[in-house]
Amino acid sequence: MAYRYTPAIARLISAFAKLPGIGQKSAQRLAFHILDEKKEDALALADAIREACSSIHLCSVCCNFTEDDPCDICTSSARDNTRICIVENPRDVAAMERIHDYRGLYHVLHGVISPMHNVGPEDVKLKELFIRLREHDEVEEIILATNSTIEGEATALYIARLLKPSGIRTTRIAHGIPMGAALEYADDVTLSRAFQNRQEI
Amino acid sequence: MAYRYTPAIARLISAFAKLPGIGQKSAQRLAFHILDEKKEDALALADAIREACSSIHLCSVCCNFTEDDPCDICTSSARDNTRICIVENPRDVAAMERIHDYRGLYHVLHGVISPMHNVGPEDVKLKELFIRLREHDEVEEIILATNSTIEGEATALYIARLLKPSGIRTTRIAHGIPMGAALEYADDVTLSRAFQNRQEI
Repeated sequence: MAYRYTPAIARLISAFAKLPGIGQKSAQRLAFHILDEKKEDALALADAIREACSSIHLCSVCCNFTEDDPCDICTSSARDNTRICIVENPRDVAAMERIHDYRGLYHVLHGVISPMHNVGPEDVKLKELFIRLREHDEVEEIILATNSTIEGEATALYIARLLKPSGIRTTRIAHGIPMGAALEYADDVTLSRAFQNRQEI
Repeated sequence: MAYRYTPAIARLISAFAKLPGIGQKSAQRLAFHILDEKKEDALALADAIREACSSIHLCSVCCNFTEDDPCDICTSSARDNTRICIVENPRDVAAMERIHDYRGLYHVLHGVISPMHNVGPEDVKLKELFIRLREHDEVEEIILATNSTIEGEATALYIARLLKPSGIRTTRIAHGIPMGAALEYADDVTLSRAFQNRQEI
């Protein structure tokens, strides 16, 4: 007979193991940590999960996570509402905001088109984007900032093609050698892209 | 102004970041996963944490985690109550139980003596062990299975010395080359220990 954890511990371990990047061993470690250490921290985590699940939803304009609808960025008078940056997920909004260069708005797709994984255009927040563009004719530029994966590239091209008739300027973020990286360690695709997109200095 | 997550997301991220081995980046990833994916899983985790915190406590006999007191192992008639295996923490009980070789009882110290970290004999469950031994004179063997770290070794020696006057047989689990491991990659201390403890075949 295999050793069985008590039901409450077993449930805790399997709940942790469902999180991404957390295997059975890590889940055990986390579960025992919670029982061993300060219970307040554990209960604070339980509360934070409950609170986030009930209070966070998608902004009806940009589809980013928000507590208020529309979200802070969509309602801010300090933002440039002639530009919309299209990203795959809310983490990308956080990354873009960290660079402080961009003061426009966002649109979060919550995924990329991927026929391989049965994800079609209707499975990402594309319809919401076009409804938004129809209602807001002040938009002058769409910046496609999906990831430089095959799916991200394909999704960017797909959106660019759909936007063509509208006459809105459509741009794609630049790909090339990351700052501080050595040329010799760059992968071929990145290097090739960096060479093609070389610019006058 | 740095980009701020909404308060509920920020709280969720910082609650995750308090778990061992989970840094800021992983905490963000977990928080967004919970918001992105099935909320049932997230709420199940919150419930499992709450339930574990309220229902799990230490067995009054062996100090292992348990929902019932005394725990299943301590109350089982199928176990050999003349042997007590002393381990550092409840995960070690699970490890020992996996090998199916041991049918005795356990005593969980919940730590090791470590003067460097201000952990003295009174900070681990040693008093509980000696009270237990006084009340149960059927114990014939104490197996010291603390880890083979400096603190684990010192704790094992300390307990062995305290047990000496009682006349109870005291053993230490064997250390040596792990099964399947190559001699050439073994560290010097392990190899030296394996050589000292060589046995007739």
